[in-house]
Amino acid sequence: MNKKISMEHGAGGFYSQELIKEIILKNISLKNSGSFGLDSLDDGASIIINKNNKELIMTTDSHVIQPIFFDGGDIGKLSICGVINDLSVMGAKPLALSCSLIIPEGFDTEKLEKIIISMDKISKEVNVPIITGDTKTIEANNLNSILINMTGIGECERPIRNSGLCIDDDIIITGDIADHGISLLIKRNGFNFKSDLKSDVAPLWNMIKLILDYEKEINKNIITSMKDPTRGGVASALNEMAECSNVGIRIMEEELPIKKEVIAACDMLGLDPLEIANEGKAIIGVNPKYSHKVLEILKNTEYGKNSKIIGKVIDNNRKKVILESKFGTKRYIDIPIGDPIPRVC
Amino acid sequence: MNKKISMEHGAGGFYSQELIKEIILKNISLKNSGSFGLDSLDDGASIIINKNNKELIMTTDSHVIQPIFFDGGDIGKLSICGVINDLSVMGAKPLALSCSLIIPEGFDTEKLEKIIISMDKISKEVNVPIITGDTKTIEANNLNSILINMTGIGECERPIRNSGLCIDDDIIITGDIADHGISLLIKRNGFNFKSDLKSDVAPLWNMIKLILDYEKEINKNIITSMKDPTRGGVASALNEMAECSNVGIRIMEEELPIKKEVIAACDMLGLDPLEIANEGKAIIGVNPKYSHKVLEILKNTEYGKNSKIIGKVIDNNRKKVILESKFGTKRYIDIPIGDPIPRVC
Repeated sequence: MNKKISMEHGAGGFYSQELIKEIILKNISLKNSGSFGLDSLDDGASIIINKNNKELIMTTDSHVIQPIFFDGGDIGKLSICGVINDLSVMGAKPLALSCSLIIPEGFDTEKLEKIIISMDKISKEVNVPIITGDTKTIEANNLNSILINMTGIGECERPIRNSGLCIDDDIIITGDIADHGISLLIKRNGFNFKSDLKSDVAPLWNMIKLILDYEKEINKNIITSMKDPTRGGVASALNEMAECSNVGIRIMEEELPIKKEVIAACDMLGLDPLEIANEGKAIIGVNPKYSHKVLEILKNTEYGKNSKIIGKVIDNNRKKVILESKFGTKRYIDIPIGDPIPRVC
Repeated sequence: MNKKISMEHGAGGFYSQELIKEIILKNISLKNSGSFGLDSLDDGASIIINKNNKELIMTTDSHVIQPIFFDGGDIGKLSICGVINDLSVMGAKPLALSCSLIIPEGFDTEKLEKIIISMDKISKEVNVPIITGDTKTIEANNLNSILINMTGIGECERPIRNSGLCIDDDIIITGDIADHGISLLIKRNGFNFKSDLKSDVAPLWNMIKLILDYEKEINKNIITSMKDPTRGGVASALNEMAECSNVGIRIMEEELPIKKEVIAACDMLGLDPLEIANEGKAIIGVNPKYSHKVLEILKNTEYGKNSKIIGKVIDNNRKKVILESKFGTKRYIDIPIGDPIPRVC
């Protein structure tokens, strides 16, 4: 691989995977503490504590974004939602969070306080405590950004994995795509769009808990895989699910929920909304017998009211994602190579 | 407090505490998941999973240091040792780690690989896996440094806390102080000292496990408090212990193990070795009946061979630390205000 790190190495696409595999995974010997670990490249990893049938899930995410305050949230909300969502899509109830701040010299304490308060609001909404932290400062940097790491621990009886999709599963997305990336891009670049587009950043645990509760109620594992399509967008998330589960995924283009203004912005800027980051959406694979019930549950929630079934897991084109229009035209949705909009998540 | 963040806010001393209390703790509502949480400002916090008598400890630390490679280690070794040691001094066996990297554009992948390999070595030494991670990139920065967050989970039957010291306890330090900060300072500033001084950075779990095993063997809680004197050095660590335990601590100046070249460097640079960071030492409060046995165990280990009893917990001067010379002169060791050597840990 290339000898110097480039921005693409952090973009969540092809180059990221190359870096992670060739430099990081290759050189780490101990990667497991439970049923799956670092090698699986899931959104988190498992820690088995004892034999009482529960597993812990650990997940970590660092954020350096621009701008740090945006329509719909800020870097604090983004950080805490990111970790809560990574735990949630693995079927894990968030138990506790750690928060580590690296603050540039000269940063306004008022801004810092706004960021902390914003985290606190989400902590209360989902009822998950921030139990430990660390605060470092650095010389003023050209990023003009605070850097936040959030790490979370959750517990579950059955981790839901990228590899869990089964043939014939329905694929649900819990709402409109690409709002986060596009709204930040508009704000950052000062485009003169008339737009009230907001980031979708939101904590998904309360919503996902409802469908996990329904599973328990009927005593059947009907949610086969979940993923939050952040960096690399829906394209990246679907490809990872298809790859890990060794299945094909067919997405019906007309079913994809996208706001008109997002389509307009993407057209104008030459961006593919499928590659744009979301921060409050989940892609969910569901046993087809139960997908309409799951959809109904999701549609009754604040963050899931625009949920739709957008496609199906298929027996051919394994490890590929196909986008099909109503006219029958087909194209592969590839894993994005670089990052269309860096530093939004 | 001041409206702008300054480097002192990350130095681990007075200003750090002000920032943490006034901006962070004040605004976070949910701070507990077990027997103690964010408010206690221990090295980590507890998560109670179920009633089987074990607690989880979670701790997090971000590192941005200069230089990233130094005599005795690098930022990778420092990060993993930091988290292992924070868990160890709380009496928690490290179970699993997460590692989050923020890499500046243009960073050499060769250097990155060296850092990862260095983490891996410690992971194997202590037998604790790195189970999940995150990799982000940022625009080239003026730090010329990779930023690493390590978060760790450990388990224990009884967390050992800053607040545990009892009157008459002996205070042990596990070796020479101030090596880490002074060796980095020398390397960074290119002073023309003839010196083979190295950072003391080391993972302390294997050493600390031996004294915890001895506790179990005699079935008595004899280790009352432990702390690794990193940022803010021995001065900060002792003050935190005295404060949290509501006791006085008397340190015998002549008993403090310090290398001659460290004393010389500190004299020349006007630094107090008590305020300089260590990365492979523990300060341990021990029931005086057992302190010589504990000392003997420590002295038989690689990282504890220069362990010494340096002082005693006293009934007066509560929340203060007193440094006493053999001539009877006394002075308070204060909590450092700023950071004598920023960006060494």
